[in-house]
Amino acid sequence: MTPLQKKRMAYQPTLPRILENLGEITFEGKEKTSSVADASEIEKTFPKTFGRGVLHLIKGKGFPKKALKVGVVLSGGQAAGGHNVITGLFDALKAFHPESHLLGFLGGPSGIVEGKYQDLAEDFLANYRNQGGFDMIGSGRTKIETEEQLEKAFGVILKLQLDGLVIIGGDDSNTNAAVLAEYLLQKGCHTKVIGVPKTIDGDLKNDLVEISFGFHTACQTYSEMIGNIARDAASAKKYTHFIKLMGRSASHIALECALQTQPNLTLIGEEVAEKRQTLKQVIEQLADLIEKRGNGGKNYSVILIPEGLIEFIPEMKILIEELNQLLAEGKDEKALSKKALETFGFLPKEIQHQLLLDRDPHGNVQVSHIQTELLLSTLVKAELNNRTSFKGKFNPVHHFFGYEGRSGFPTHFDATYCYALGHVAALLIKEGHTGYMSCLRHLSKHPQEWGVCGIPITSLMNLETRKGKAKPVIRKALVDLKGHPFKTFERGRAKWGLEDHYLYPGPIQFEGDSTYTECVPKIL
Amino acid sequence: MTPLQKKRMAYQPTLPRILENLGEITFEGKEKTSSVADASEIEKTFPKTFGRGVLHLIKGKGFPKKALKVGVVLSGGQAAGGHNVITGLFDALKAFHPESHLLGFLGGPSGIVEGKYQDLAEDFLANYRNQGGFDMIGSGRTKIETEEQLEKAFGVILKLQLDGLVIIGGDDSNTNAAVLAEYLLQKGCHTKVIGVPKTIDGDLKNDLVEISFGFHTACQTYSEMIGNIARDAASAKKYTHFIKLMGRSASHIALECALQTQPNLTLIGEEVAEKRQTLKQVIEQLADLIEKRGNGGKNYSVILIPEGLIEFIPEMKILIEELNQLLAEGKDEKALSKKALETFGFLPKEIQHQLLLDRDPHGNVQVSHIQTELLLSTLVKAELNNRTSFKGKFNPVHHFFGYEGRSGFPTHFDATYCYALGHVAALLIKEGHTGYMSCLRHLSKHPQEWGVCGIPITSLMNLETRKGKAKPVIRKALVDLKGHPFKTFERGRAKWGLEDHYLYPGPIQFEGDSTYTECVPKIL
Repeated sequence: MTPLQKKRMAYQPTLPRILENLGEITFEGKEKTSSVADASEIEKTFPKTFGRGVLHLIKGKGFPKKALKVGVVLSGGQAAGGHNVITGLFDALKAFHPESHLLGFLGGPSGIVEGKYQDLAEDFLANYRNQGGFDMIGSGRTKIETEEQLEKAFGVILKLQLDGLVIIGGDDSNTNAAVLAEYLLQKGCHTKVIGVPKTIDGDLKNDLVEISFGFHTACQTYSEMIGNIARDAASAKKYTHFIKLMGRSASHIALECALQTQPNLTLIGEEVAEKRQTLKQVIEQLADLIEKRGNGGKNYSVILIPEGLIEFIPEMKILIEELNQLLAEGKDEKALSKKALETFGFLPKEIQHQLLLDRDPHGNVQVSHIQTELLLSTLVKAELNNRTSFKGKFNPVHHFFGYEGRSGFPTHFDATYCYALGHVAALLIKEGHTGYMSCLRHLSKHPQEWGVCGIPITSLMNLETRKGKAKPVIRKALVDLKGHPFKTFERGRAKWGLEDHYLYPGPIQFEGDSTYTECVPKIL
Repeated sequence: MTPLQKKRMAYQPTLPRILENLGEITFEGKEKTSSVADASEIEKTFPKTFGRGVLHLIKGKGFPKKALKVGVVLSGGQAAGGHNVITGLFDALKAFHPESHLLGFLGGPSGIVEGKYQDLAEDFLANYRNQGGFDMIGSGRTKIETEEQLEKAFGVILKLQLDGLVIIGGDDSNTNAAVLAEYLLQKGCHTKVIGVPKTIDGDLKNDLVEISFGFHTACQTYSEMIGNIARDAASAKKYTHFIKLMGRSASHIALECALQTQPNLTLIGEEVAEKRQTLKQVIEQLADLIEKRGNGGKNYSVILIPEGLIEFIPEMKILIEELNQLLAEGKDEKALSKKALETFGFLPKEIQHQLLLDRDPHGNVQVSHIQTELLLSTLVKAELNNRTSFKGKFNPVHHFFGYEGRSGFPTHFDATYCYALGHVAALLIKEGHTGYMSCLRHLSKHPQEWGVCGIPITSLMNLETRKGKAKPVIRKALVDLKGHPFKTFERGRAKWGLEDHYLYPGPIQFEGDSTYTECVPKIL
């Protein structure tokens, strides 16, 4: 172990004051809920769990403190803090009763279906306190959704006589938690299923869930790198850095990193979609900035690109859909519609090649493999070459930051948030609630002041088409173009473009001034 | 400014004890030097500065403390700590005499030739104390080597009546410092020229220069990312990460990062060259490990690749040399020798394409543009596809870490080292020495215990062929395969390959335990 690993092991996260005495609090259900849309359809799928109230903490004895047996699983991509959800859950269960028992399902939800698990005891858990990664019990992308999977999971849960099951995951995994909660209730099983909001993308949030865990650490890690690169750009004065950031369905990460580092230009997918920008318009926007800077003697820039940009550009979305259709029929790009063919023709050769040849097992274009940063820089270069008005120099450098932000040591914010999320999950189980998501509120305040609630997962759902079928799923939160974070960005960016106002956040700090150790996501 | 920027501004680096009272020390020249090779040729080029003694600090009054006028310039690629060399130089000059004057040449050595400079005063410098980047006065790659450039620089130096000039740079820039020192002496000019060893690559070192500055911060930054990725790999258990690291002429960075993070496999260019490994052998080595791991159920790995690997593979070096020759003659790859054509045929199409089309302004192959990480993963994939014995899965992910490590906040080590290097440079000038490199010794001890010396730059030189001519240059230090760092790596790697012994260094810390705030490069 490195010295920092050891030091972080010994860190004790602050608990919200209202969680300090777990024996004297319980939940009160208020404000009956509906779903964000398609209520009657959602209710049909979730007759037993639909419409329950949001749960608020109140003083009260609640259920007696007794030994509980609980399972926990990590689902989907890594996010910093996952281990702390587990240690928070463990500590709360042990506070209820020293005989409480926590077991971890291995390798993600498939561990539940296949009954693969491991007992989690303090001496083992100690090594993972405040550490990054999901390596304690692994993770996986299997979903428990088919009748057969549900039956198997039910069998395992029965056999283990679990009082509760905590599913730590993103929107799909929390949808699955709701499905399993409903299924178990219908089977007359008393096991409570609780979801915990995890995803670095930050798209699992709403009026009550202020942010998912892992987002802060990921953005801080990327912002350290972006700041370093910006300082390098301002020193070398000769490179245009195209930095692609993870986050496919929403551009929260790009927005947060833009607020943290103030680069010259940041594309926000939701804005591109709202304005119905064409690829050509995006390229012109980039070229305009680079030309103005270059002609003013600044042959360097820093540009942030959300990973999912391409799918926000309407014409690209259409092109990809048409290609998927054609290639499934054994045809080639020559059969594209006139408009799609025009879009295709505008793309650099390498990208055309990727679109035609790089297919997933279902034969679809692998959108996540498209090197958007290269696509943009190649087209910008061609555009600048065509402009006699451009007097500067253009040397692009490409970066993609993704995996390096998912498994780092959680920031104080994520470590504390997750530890409390684990406590709330334990309390929800003890108090007999199922189909709920563990939730903390007022996260921009000091952790001692945070509030606690339980949210019926069904209240976050709407119907969406998946594999041709309407399915109840949690609605993803996109960047709100009328919201405060985007508005702040919008006010800043005019100045950040031509002048240089780079900020250098530096590496995540765990000791020292609270101004940087206790910081929270800027979009909060 | 971010909170960390402000906090770091206020940090005061520790000075070696022997530098605490600058008025009571001077240098004593001992041990007359030669050069590392080609002594008679080097002496011919440097008749006035060749053979001087290594300078050691002794107690003594030395020259009186008087106001000095000194210029400073940053040369070449960014390295963390450059700003601290300047503040260290400034503080020492001011300690000699409050009327001392420091000016910074702008945009690298061209600033000297063109007489572009800026006065450096405390209120301006304060913003750059312990900060990353070279943005205070910029940097550049111009070299002062032609007669015309030397004359112009001489003119500027005379006009400014400089007592000294400090050149902060890598091996080439320090060679240039020696050339300028000699030139000025021959012109009867009293201006002293002092070099400071800068480069993240770590290849500017020898028996006396233990390490160049910037290496530690770069390696710590890359190791943070590599550790994060390794933890992600051990969690997701499905990706093989190919991580290319900056450092073209030597593999010190890859070696240091390997010691810090213990990845499954690290290629060291010097070892590949020593063993005269073919590209096919390198690929087989990689495929063997991935096969063993995959067949044992581990479908993930972390692999480090030095940026300059390709040039260490003898057959690739030959291929590139032949291609440069042929393409200059207007011929194409069909005219390659049989052996080179075989090598060429073994390469993936994308790389063949890069070799043929991506040329620098002189028509040469752009070796630094070759995506070595993609080259290796593509060939490994083909190799694994051919092996019926391989039962695992192979999903490669590519990374390149370079620019993000050059301009970050310097670690305590680099901040302290650079601040002291600035002091030593000031003292060398005050004591009347020229053509020397500022040097600190015993760097693995506490900074208070560090030693100080001045090294005649000519003593580091040998003759090398540059543009077809034998030229005296500082010899680059390659990884010593018999040295302690490589031997430590060699002992570890057998275990690190099949088992997982990843270490997670985490982000650079500036406060807290000295075990991580006061750490030094492992290769020391």
